Amino acid sequence: MHKFLAKCDEALADITAQGRYRRFVALEKLADRFPYYRVTMEGRTQNILVWSSNDYLAMGTDPEVIAASVDAAQRMGAGAGGTRNIAGSSPVHVALEEELADLHGKDAALLFTSGYVSNQASLGAILNALPDWQVFSDAKNHNSMIVGIKDGRHAAVHIFKHNDLADLERLLAVAPADAPKLIVFESVYSMDGDIAPIGAICDLADKYNALTYLDEVHAVGMYGGHGGGVSERDGVAHRVTIIEGTLAKAFGCHGGYITGDFKVLDYIRSVAPGFIFTTALPPPTVAAALTSIRILKADHARRALLFNRAQTLKAKFEAAGLPVMPSESHIVPLMIGNAAKATEVSMRLIREFGMYATPINYPTVAAGTERLRFTPGPKHTEAMMDELVAALQHILLGHSVKAGVK
Amino acid sequence: MHKFLAKCDEALADITAQGRYRRFVALEKLADRFPYYRVTMEGRTQNILVWSSNDYLAMGTDPEVIAASVDAAQRMGAGAGGTRNIAGSSPVHVALEEELADLHGKDAALLFTSGYVSNQASLGAILNALPDWQVFSDAKNHNSMIVGIKDGRHAAVHIFKHNDLADLERLLAVAPADAPKLIVFESVYSMDGDIAPIGAICDLADKYNALTYLDEVHAVGMYGGHGGGVSERDGVAHRVTIIEGTLAKAFGCHGGYITGDFKVLDYIRSVAPGFIFTTALPPPTVAAALTSIRILKADHARRALLFNRAQTLKAKFEAAGLPVMPSESHIVPLMIGNAAKATEVSMRLIREFGMYATPINYPTVAAGTERLRFTPGPKHTEAMMDELVAALQHILLGHSVKAGVK
Repeated sequence: MHKFLAKCDEALADITAQGRYRRFVALEKLADRFPYYRVTMEGRTQNILVWSSNDYLAMGTDPEVIAASVDAAQRMGAGAGGTRNIAGSSPVHVALEEELADLHGKDAALLFTSGYVSNQASLGAILNALPDWQVFSDAKNHNSMIVGIKDGRHAAVHIFKHNDLADLERLLAVAPADAPKLIVFESVYSMDGDIAPIGAICDLADKYNALTYLDEVHAVGMYGGHGGGVSERDGVAHRVTIIEGTLAKAFGCHGGYITGDFKVLDYIRSVAPGFIFTTALPPPTVAAALTSIRILKADHARRALLFNRAQTLKAKFEAAGLPVMPSESHIVPLMIGNAAKATEVSMRLIREFGMYATPINYPTVAAGTERLRFTPGPKHTEAMMDELVAALQHILLGHSVKAGVK
Repeated sequence: MHKFLAKCDEALADITAQGRYRRFVALEKLADRFPYYRVTMEGRTQNILVWSSNDYLAMGTDPEVIAASVDAAQRMGAGAGGTRNIAGSSPVHVALEEELADLHGKDAALLFTSGYVSNQASLGAILNALPDWQVFSDAKNHNSMIVGIKDGRHAAVHIFKHNDLADLERLLAVAPADAPKLIVFESVYSMDGDIAPIGAICDLADKYNALTYLDEVHAVGMYGGHGGGVSERDGVAHRVTIIEGTLAKAFGCHGGYITGDFKVLDYIRSVAPGFIFTTALPPPTVAAALTSIRILKADHARRALLFNRAQTLKAKFEAAGLPVMPSESHIVPLMIGNAAKATEVSMRLIREFGMYATPINYPTVAAGTERLRFTPGPKHTEAMMDELVAALQHILLGHSVKAGVK
């Protein structure tokens, strides 16, 4: 047997033994009944209530967003048919980039095929532009930023303690004064649900002449007066050099983007291989995202409902004695602490209660901090939450199942 | 000014001075009139005939494919709402993977957000699995494979001369006999239009106990009895370890994939960050691709028409004294040899003749080999080709414009 095939066997056996072998549950989203999905398991088809979608505001199933996707497919077809340079730029791509620039109060925006690619390709392009970058990266940054930073072949990388201003300043102060500096961080950290002090980080950036790269993928659409993210909410978007976001979470569609100064984006557009050598996003996706952003710019009530739901679920978890983790965002993580148990709780939720929450295991979170992650949205009602709490009390705390809970 | 901003200015000035600053033409594909697109330039809106789409078989605008996209959007919404592990796997994703595995006669398939990502993420995962890989990479491999190979931190990389079996064997023969080996290559090279000797490369792989990774993005849907690519046409698909393809070219949609042995794909699925940490493809895209593949498996006439068109255009270019490059595939490149001139010819084609062919400049091809690239498909008629030939004779050879050509 070839060594690589033997390695696959061995690694898969290890992953399985650690209880973190991933089985994807095939969930058919029901556009007219979201957050219900249809699932077939063990020969039985049923509708289950999903608590783990990143379609935080249910925009992916919004009738206007769907209508925009349908209209674009009928007018322009299912795919772009080329890279942005090779016949793949449509007027809708241009309009979406203008809308995103406006959303963040920036000169320009640039679309990528995913948020992952936007981070990897942009950071790689920025860091390969100069030979002596000093990069300051939050310890809990998403994998896509870490790989983008690693793609910077000559950059010196300094990891600062998560959201720790003192540690960041300590590292900035000892770096060479005249070297170009970049601080890379997120606004909402999706697995813990905490939020970065963006303004204070910008203060340090000013003090040490650093540029800033902010990932707002778990904030755009939800935070700020128009959905411009935490940087809009805090009134500091103009101080951040590059704001990165996604169309695939609160906007309910697909793809990623960066916004910033025209010349910085024009540079990245001109040199980043992950932007140049790939097919442009499909017109139906782009049109749907454009509609979604425009709706959310104005729909404050939907945003308010999201935070109300998250607060309510956190309060219900606490009152019920469930191990809810502290979170200042719309994300509600419940600590389990063990991969096999997280998977088991998730499976029992489906089998016994018709509800689904994804187990979050290594490598998404550190081993020993495995969790279930709940993202209640505008369409999750209080009655649904009460059902969920009762189910979790039964599974985790051994309570008997109350009457009325199926 | 921060050093990076100064660098952006300087680099953009250089790119502009070299005549390779890219201006994207915003082209609105007209689904019911493909390959015509609507374009607005210098205040004037007109329909232009596009010769450069990678939607080689016009499947992106096929009524059944569009209907599948529309139906999926209405049933499941505009986006997947999560990663494959976090509520983003639908039954349509599973069905598409099964269809792709069947297309290539393999155990399993794995979807990625793009062909670019499928190469980068898969090669990175494979090459980081062992400490002593010896990689043999064709000199003209696409950027996405090159970056994937570079992501393999400990791999020794050997570049063999393009499609040169003797050079490949020379390198294989001197590599350590017991080290794991991987040969990475494409079937159809999209910028030159030539084709790899897949069977002979597999013979060498057998002789030296190497695995093979074959990129068929410019061949799937078009070559082979069912659109399984050149490896199907040549009857050697079963000999290739991993076949990679795209849904964004002949299938007319979006996304990439790999196919191969179940355990190899299960390993990549379990460890590749570019697969794990990114939102699943949108259901409308996935449903459209599934329909497109099923149509093309049976529609031999459409494939035959593609090759007929390409042969016809090559013959017309040759007869007209135009600098057509030798090509054994469906791609028809015309050598220009200079970035500024390639851009100028492309602009004159639009302005004076209402036709569009993308200028292909560095970094997509080597400097000095700049070209225009034509991809005539089933919907490009002989009359359209005659108009194109007359326009190019006028622009490149100084012929007067014949009567009847606008």
